Amino acid sequence: MEQLHGGDWAGYLSEYGALPLDFSVNVSPLGLPEGVRRAAEAALREAERYPDPLCRALRRGLSAQHGVPEEQIVCGAGAAELIFRLPTALRPKKALLPTPCFSEYEHALKNADCAAEHFPLREDRGFALTEEILERIDGETDLLFLCEPNNPTGRTTDRALLLKILRRCAQTGTLPVVDECFNELLDDPRAHTLEGELSAFPDLIMLRAFTKSHAMAGLRLGYALCGRAETAARLRDCAQPWAVSAPAQAAGLAALEEHEYLERLHALLREQRPFLAAGLARLGCRVVPGEANFLLFHCEDDALCEKLRPKGVLLRDCRSFPGLGPGWYRAAVRTQEENETFLNTLGEVLSGG
Amino acid sequence: MEQLHGGDWAGYLSEYGALPLDFSVNVSPLGLPEGVRRAAEAALREAERYPDPLCRALRRGLSAQHGVPEEQIVCGAGAAELIFRLPTALRPKKALLPTPCFSEYEHALKNADCAAEHFPLREDRGFALTEEILERIDGETDLLFLCEPNNPTGRTTDRALLLKILRRCAQTGTLPVVDECFNELLDDPRAHTLEGELSAFPDLIMLRAFTKSHAMAGLRLGYALCGRAETAARLRDCAQPWAVSAPAQAAGLAALEEHEYLERLHALLREQRPFLAAGLARLGCRVVPGEANFLLFHCEDDALCEKLRPKGVLLRDCRSFPGLGPGWYRAAVRTQEENETFLNTLGEVLSGG
Repeated sequence: MEQLHGGDWAGYLSEYGALPLDFSVNVSPLGLPEGVRRAAEAALREAERYPDPLCRALRRGLSAQHGVPEEQIVCGAGAAELIFRLPTALRPKKALLPTPCFSEYEHALKNADCAAEHFPLREDRGFALTEEILERIDGETDLLFLCEPNNPTGRTTDRALLLKILRRCAQTGTLPVVDECFNELLDDPRAHTLEGELSAFPDLIMLRAFTKSHAMAGLRLGYALCGRAETAARLRDCAQPWAVSAPAQAAGLAALEEHEYLERLHALLREQRPFLAAGLARLGCRVVPGEANFLLFHCEDDALCEKLRPKGVLLRDCRSFPGLGPGWYRAAVRTQEENETFLNTLGEVLSGG
Repeated sequence: MEQLHGGDWAGYLSEYGALPLDFSVNVSPLGLPEGVRRAAEAALREAERYPDPLCRALRRGLSAQHGVPEEQIVCGAGAAELIFRLPTALRPKKALLPTPCFSEYEHALKNADCAAEHFPLREDRGFALTEEILERIDGETDLLFLCEPNNPTGRTTDRALLLKILRRCAQTGTLPVVDECFNELLDDPRAHTLEGELSAFPDLIMLRAFTKSHAMAGLRLGYALCGRAETAARLRDCAQPWAVSAPAQAAGLAALEEHEYLERLHALLREQRPFLAAGLARLGCRVVPGEANFLLFHCEDDALCEKLRPKGVLLRDCRSFPGLGPGWYRAAVRTQEENETFLNTLGEVLSGG
């Protein structure tokens, strides 16, 4: 598990007795919004009660936010939990994944005995999805996972191509699952979300979370927007009734009010994404033009993580992603000061310091 | 979902605009311990970090508490989440359940296409488990769920019979899953737990939670103690890595220190259990001699819940449990004052008031 994901601050803490500067996870560098923290804290005072199994208040808020009926919304303990519910609820036999992508898709598919086929994204195309995927979607493809923007590449897919994919899926009876967990980290989230397509494509399932945009990773909250109410009901029925904790439900409801926080976040990312990319390029790294709050890059030195770790910096080694390999890394976009520290430390390491 | 479980305060709140006196859920009437609340609150301040996927600190604490190696312990978002993981991880084809029992066992088994056979507990034997179950466990029985003490009956099984069952399971290759979520609510928890049998019966899986004993239902934390480390690894691998939230991990660790709280709880239950039972009997109810923090009883009036609800009291209707039916109810044992209010309100209802 430790090797497959970033964010192992606990392992670092037990080894070094201090917390690292963590560039290995992609959460908002602004931290948990104060209003969200207060709401979760208030919920703790009532923690003797079971959480509302139907997440009524939260789903009402999400329904208003996305313009999607409440009965088409299902909440989970992070999008990752819903990724595990999907194959259990929908029983696909064969799924297609553009790779590299978030490793839990394949983990969840295997867990439900579903074969996972890869559609390799190519570096010489900037790891962008291409029309060739349309030919790979056929009557045997029960489910398609797309990640928009994709983790770890940070790339989005052209809207025209996304719509072609949805149309192709409708023809072949393929369930398209579009993971938009990083949507709010794009410069223009509204331009990229597919929420407006749910009525045109009732098989569409979208995954969303506050984990990254509102730095709520520790609380565990994600949700699915489904084109059909019956899909939401099946996703709900294949897990325990009380999957979403009371503090997470309260935090999610409060997060819906954090408009000013998101504006600050977008301003920071618009400034720091190019700053970090330029800094990495100056150090001789090949940087993929990511659009979210993280950057995928290649470096000749394939032992960066081990070298940065004793200096207090965690970086995500991407060698375990299919289609990448040694020398590939993912770095979060953080504040100016943190990005400078990271680039300076990386510079030291690369110059043998 | 609302019909299958107690604790629907959220539905009551939206109907009446106030919170009910809730006798329909079985959590400690002493509420969340203050030390646990503080620990969860501190964890909220670091909620931008992912929770430790390995729950290292918590598992270390649980290992010391139970005398079970860390690698045989797996944590989940409530015991209910682990109940859902079990059939996914272990793939039983046929399972046996003494009934009535917690309804999520069968829900989880069906979710994984496992047939659930019932062993009916009989009222004329006080709903106690009997030796006849030994004949029902055979080579076809892949998994056996036992709940000790059982929900909703509150009964425990004689230790000699439990050991016979474990021996029988070892012969037939049946995995015994013993849910001890209410163990800490017994007058003498140590006399009943099977934790000391894990090395003698390596197929044994025990479920535990703080939900009821420490009134932490809203936080979602449970754990399994497994006879084999490889069983724990399989249970871990069939779910998302970050199943247990950061506040839940911190709360669980703090709960391990709440010795004085548990003493107060046991003193209260020893006094109030017979008080509530006597009160119910005086009102003409047939009370099952439960040993935990709830009592199952039968009443001639099969519409008690609907009549108590407008008076601000929630009671668990048990008609949906296999082997029970209309007129069966479960009431939590709460504080003297609350139990008196409950009995008085019930008295009014039964005298037509």
